[in-house]
Amino acid sequence: MIKFITDTTLRIDDFSPAKNALDNIKNDPMAGWLTVPSDATEIANIRTAAAKIRNNSSYLICIGIGGSYLGHKAIIDMLGNRSNTKIVYAGNNISSYELEKLFTEIGTSDFSVNVISKSGTTTEPAIAFRLIKAGLIAKYGEKGAAERIYVTTDADKGALHDEAIAKGYTRFVIPNDIGGRYSVLTPVGLLPMAVAGINIEALLTGAKNASIGINAEFSINVSNATVDTSASTVREAARYALTRQMLRSDRGIDTEILASFEPRMATFNEWWKQLFGESEGKNNQGIFPASVIYTTDLHSMGQYIQQGRRNIMETVVKITTPNTRSIIVPEEKSDLDGLNYLAGKSLDYINAKALEATVRAHRLGGIPVFELEVPDFSEQTVGELIYFFELSCAISATVSGVNPFDQPGVETYKQNMFSLLGKLGF
Amino acid sequence: MIKFITDTTLRIDDFSPAKNALDNIKNDPMAGWLTVPSDATEIANIRTAAAKIRNNSSYLICIGIGGSYLGHKAIIDMLGNRSNTKIVYAGNNISSYELEKLFTEIGTSDFSVNVISKSGTTTEPAIAFRLIKAGLIAKYGEKGAAERIYVTTDADKGALHDEAIAKGYTRFVIPNDIGGRYSVLTPVGLLPMAVAGINIEALLTGAKNASIGINAEFSINVSNATVDTSASTVREAARYALTRQMLRSDRGIDTEILASFEPRMATFNEWWKQLFGESEGKNNQGIFPASVIYTTDLHSMGQYIQQGRRNIMETVVKITTPNTRSIIVPEEKSDLDGLNYLAGKSLDYINAKALEATVRAHRLGGIPVFELEVPDFSEQTVGELIYFFELSCAISATVSGVNPFDQPGVETYKQNMFSLLGKLGF
Repeated sequence: MIKFITDTTLRIDDFSPAKNALDNIKNDPMAGWLTVPSDATEIANIRTAAAKIRNNSSYLICIGIGGSYLGHKAIIDMLGNRSNTKIVYAGNNISSYELEKLFTEIGTSDFSVNVISKSGTTTEPAIAFRLIKAGLIAKYGEKGAAERIYVTTDADKGALHDEAIAKGYTRFVIPNDIGGRYSVLTPVGLLPMAVAGINIEALLTGAKNASIGINAEFSINVSNATVDTSASTVREAARYALTRQMLRSDRGIDTEILASFEPRMATFNEWWKQLFGESEGKNNQGIFPASVIYTTDLHSMGQYIQQGRRNIMETVVKITTPNTRSIIVPEEKSDLDGLNYLAGKSLDYINAKALEATVRAHRLGGIPVFELEVPDFSEQTVGELIYFFELSCAISATVSGVNPFDQPGVETYKQNMFSLLGKLGF
Repeated sequence: MIKFITDTTLRIDDFSPAKNALDNIKNDPMAGWLTVPSDATEIANIRTAAAKIRNNSSYLICIGIGGSYLGHKAIIDMLGNRSNTKIVYAGNNISSYELEKLFTEIGTSDFSVNVISKSGTTTEPAIAFRLIKAGLIAKYGEKGAAERIYVTTDADKGALHDEAIAKGYTRFVIPNDIGGRYSVLTPVGLLPMAVAGINIEALLTGAKNASIGINAEFSINVSNATVDTSASTVREAARYALTRQMLRSDRGIDTEILASFEPRMATFNEWWKQLFGESEGKNNQGIFPASVIYTTDLHSMGQYIQQGRRNIMETVVKITTPNTRSIIVPEEKSDLDGLNYLAGKSLDYINAKALEATVRAHRLGGIPVFELEVPDFSEQTVGELIYFFELSCAISATVSGVNPFDQPGVETYKQNMFSLLGKLGF
């Protein structure tokens, strides 16, 4: 189970704000993710589609932006793609350089497309889909192209829904009660992850198990222990949420850094940034979310974190067993580099010590540091991790007095862009 | 030429703090980068080594961390690798998963190694070099391996220097008067970039031309124009430095976001984060540096930036001509996605409008936004861009009262790590 570890000065005694927040969240029409819904028929259909894609495509192009791609890219990067079908991404920017590079990479290989968009009219994915669809039709003909297009969209309406019906594309549904940044464990993420050979049932089980505590009472007082061994994922998520809100309101901390010691977690950190930034950053408040990958960034952002402005807190994700086997540092006779004291030690061991050293150093530097202890990179654990952050984010945003599920500010640049591009009505 | 554009409310009238800062910087023993030194013999040797590597290697592994790899990776990502030798990276983390992945990718291909380390004893690159050297020797024998190892290190001393002399590796020099984060235009960056087919002389020329103004007087008063068409790169760098320091001291802005609309600039933003974070983040002060890539992150960090806590400023890098040709949006008869209003428009045009819309939207949201207008992705321009940021960073840090060239805080985690790992004397 995931554990939230901090020092005794940051102990939470009163869980009632989390309990109240959770009561509100349960009644929110956008809290569909809270119970980790999954439909056996849809899962079976996803498995069938994934098998077909793996069988006839060297590439799956996932077209989507924001919550429509970050979550599954995060998990696929973290767990590794176990299939021979490469998962690539388009429609998350407007750069012709990137699209050209993608076309060059795919070359004459077989490919399929998964378009993920609630409306089908979001500018970036819509442009990419038009262009890639043209490529599919040129290569496979109208009918062949339609058999290689998989859309994940609204159940009943919207441009993409209508086109899918008209053209006979395979369809998957984005539930109406789950917003983009909370949607990775719906078909939005499940189809690409299944293509990558990830066990999606185990992911869902991990999240489902983590959700068990949402109907239990929070005890108002906890023991003095900084690690509560009887804790549930829900309790740990509440502790994380309340601790960061306490630091924001009582100590003026306005920035949180999510740190990992495994580079394959870089996209996961980006997913986390969207989750928290978009949920909490409104009404002129919020905690600015930033990401670092160590030890890489100890040699770039490390100086600032150690001795810069003291307005930051840090959450260090500690994977207890990141790999089943590790590389060992070899002995060298001459020892010119002075590394023989590490000979026979594994890289994972050294990396774990670097983590311990970093937590100590940053606490010495006056930064509140949390450790999030995560057992391994199994699907069940990753499902739990996703749920942990979604729940803590919803609680944290609610405690701070904002709606965790809307994003009214995202429209401003869109309105300006439509107006500049001369779109009718803007 | 690069132009720094902001709105009239942020006009700088008094350039004397920048002038004083520059006078101090000129006398600093670590300001070797200020005059963009280049040695014709060393450039020729780099060219020779690069040609040999391109000729006998499918991969060049660059081993280095922080300033030893970020700058050249940034430029190679930005300009694209024009050679058939792939540039890959090791020694910037302690993850066995990443190293294993690298070994799998290289497989049985021919490869060479460029180890970049002033001392040769920094833990991460030293571990990677031990392991990769063992692989080289197993594949090519002692002598063959030595011919494929290129070290960039101190001129006279250190573990790597001594080993290079003993084993006959090809050597390049990290100048004593240039620190890691200011070193990309020295052999640290020049060798890998030359291997990637980048015109390193043009890069140096761009930076050299940008440096011309450093001995000219700054005029104390400038016109009311927000864009001073007579400006030099040095003047523009001073304006940027003084504006951000004014926002820090007068308006309590503690975070700066560097935004780009081209994903290939992601590593460049990381280089910028190290440059500013490590130069300014000390004595419990600094401006927290963060990176976004648009329009991608308008769908993740956009909400926060538009409506979150108003403690941020944003610098938008605007590449006037990012590509020589662009992709055009095709017409579609049915227009189900409503995109026909963009048919015939290029992606570059739409991306430029998205940039304009974002600047407007974020200013409406109460964020101070700077635009940095950069003509293109030519080597000369990129050389100028590097110089622009190095100079503005040194001025900005000096104006804020800290030493732009030290990083005393980086040692804290190292001391703790050595102690935890049982290194003698710690």
